[in-house]
Amino acid sequence: MNIPKTLEWIGSTTGHLSLIDQTLLPGEARYIDCRTVDAVWEAIRVLRVRGAPAIGVAAAYGTVIGTRAKIADGVEPRLAVALAADYLATSRPTAVNLFRALDEMRRAADEAAPGRMVAALLDRAIAFHRADQQMCRDIGRHGAELLSDGDGVLTHCNAGALATSGMGTALAVIYEAARAGKRLKVFADETRPLLQGARLTAWELQRAGIDVTLICDNMAASVMASGRIRKVVVGADRIAANGDTANKIGTYGVALCAAAHGLPFYVAAPSTTFDLNLPDGSGIPIEERAETEITEGFGKRTAPVGVRVYNPAFDVTPARLIAGIVTELGVIRPVNAAGVRSQFPHAG
Amino acid sequence: MNIPKTLEWIGSTTGHLSLIDQTLLPGEARYIDCRTVDAVWEAIRVLRVRGAPAIGVAAAYGTVIGTRAKIADGVEPRLAVALAADYLATSRPTAVNLFRALDEMRRAADEAAPGRMVAALLDRAIAFHRADQQMCRDIGRHGAELLSDGDGVLTHCNAGALATSGMGTALAVIYEAARAGKRLKVFADETRPLLQGARLTAWELQRAGIDVTLICDNMAASVMASGRIRKVVVGADRIAANGDTANKIGTYGVALCAAAHGLPFYVAAPSTTFDLNLPDGSGIPIEERAETEITEGFGKRTAPVGVRVYNPAFDVTPARLIAGIVTELGVIRPVNAAGVRSQFPHAG
Repeated sequence: MNIPKTLEWIGSTTGHLSLIDQTLLPGEARYIDCRTVDAVWEAIRVLRVRGAPAIGVAAAYGTVIGTRAKIADGVEPRLAVALAADYLATSRPTAVNLFRALDEMRRAADEAAPGRMVAALLDRAIAFHRADQQMCRDIGRHGAELLSDGDGVLTHCNAGALATSGMGTALAVIYEAARAGKRLKVFADETRPLLQGARLTAWELQRAGIDVTLICDNMAASVMASGRIRKVVVGADRIAANGDTANKIGTYGVALCAAAHGLPFYVAAPSTTFDLNLPDGSGIPIEERAETEITEGFGKRTAPVGVRVYNPAFDVTPARLIAGIVTELGVIRPVNAAGVRSQFPHAG
Repeated sequence: MNIPKTLEWIGSTTGHLSLIDQTLLPGEARYIDCRTVDAVWEAIRVLRVRGAPAIGVAAAYGTVIGTRAKIADGVEPRLAVALAADYLATSRPTAVNLFRALDEMRRAADEAAPGRMVAALLDRAIAFHRADQQMCRDIGRHGAELLSDGDGVLTHCNAGALATSGMGTALAVIYEAARAGKRLKVFADETRPLLQGARLTAWELQRAGIDVTLICDNMAASVMASGRIRKVVVGADRIAANGDTANKIGTYGVALCAAAHGLPFYVAAPSTTFDLNLPDGSGIPIEERAETEITEGFGKRTAPVGVRVYNPAFDVTPARLIAGIVTELGVIRPVNAAGVRSQFPHAG
């Protein structure tokens, strides 16, 4: 199966980060070389690399590159790490995974001998990268059990290989089921306003040889009514302690339609997506994004000038609509506070 | 209230049809003059004029123009009408209202003295136009009762003034409620793939001074969950004898979300929308449209080449999800075969 590689470290401690430029997809699959911390910063900033896990891994490698340059300029090694990490933290200030990756690199620096700082950081970045890939495989393995041969499966947005440094989260479930010989028919919501489903999910599933059909978001209910969808699998941006799940705008509507048709709705996400400090989804802040994403989403004005626009980036799907949450640790089912607690016995 | 005029006959029997070119909206509100039957045919064909009622009225006036030219060329008056009507029938072969309008003009020709054919046709076209405007006002009047001061109202696609020769159907309900002093906050789904909500509904409501907020289709559920929507009003393309309603793709999903939030979902449409020969919605054929509407909807390719696409133009909302159907005759409520029969006592 030809699952795209989102990013890769090329070479040794003198090497660089190579990543697929997602702003050019689906028209062109071009890999760019990031040889400076500025290039990594810019790639995160303008979404050449996107998806919480992929951003984290890119930032880890970016710290290696930035530290190496500072040390070459004569900066003391630990200070060099701090400067590189602080700089990368400004690339996308709302990405929690970015900070987690940078903290990991700062810890690596604390533990390293100053004389082999770059090598120690690279080792840690590679370990971080491998852990992300393993997480994806484990989610895929646990989730694949939920899909049956012949299933029609709906997904929303892109929780795929392109969002991680491995085979994805929601799409890992599909890839692993397909690898196990299950024939699936996937429907991909285009996912307005930014069309991650059309641009990214349709592209990576098609490339991997998975049977994929692109639909507009507002067609999902009708395809469900026709009997062609048996299950829904989506990713998550943040999950509260009771299982309420924030994900890309439109996910909640899909969950309501799935419930109305008696279809199981699954969430697949790394365990790091849980925020156990939030008792439920009501505390999850919903980012509002630029109006022009809706009014000029395709380089052309398609709405009247001056019209009021509401553009929430996420919505919250209540736990009661979720049949199971797949993490690298297993499947949480039923989805409620007790179910979540049973997967994190040492938390809180 | 500044409700746009979709089309208008200018002058006497030597006059012409003026219509707003909807392909230029929302960027430009330009009226074009149709002085030949070819110009009317082309306007219908390329959707400069759209919406079943508006197409019907345009075709009626087009018959006047076409007949006049044929008679001037020496064609026998009744044959001239037949030629003009047959030609216009090819402009949009699936538009039922188009055929109804042309039949009306053929009947007018049968009843007219050959010596005053053009005048008789124009009288009939004007009567047909006035009846459409009256139908809109009556729908608005009956439907306005369903809305309360302060309501948030969601609508989908464009069942507005721009779809009729009057004040619209679903939007007539909103216009008449606003006229009665009710303050409404309208949410308009952009309505992928062709964005009639963004391009047309947002434009005409904004112009009329109605508080309108544009959202992507996949945001409706989340806005409902936030409590900002109290009622849903949409149009219809075809309604079966039991109240099952075919309308623009996405309507069914909106109805499911409304039901999940306990919000009444209303359909507003002329009584001519009912097809009493269809016992229920299962017999309504669903047109599939070009893939490029989804993959290149904005003049730019946004999906991988060769990806499979499903693009149904309509979906069917079952009667059980519809709180009421507003026609020019009143409100059908509850929506079921008996309710529909009670509004059409002489049918079937």
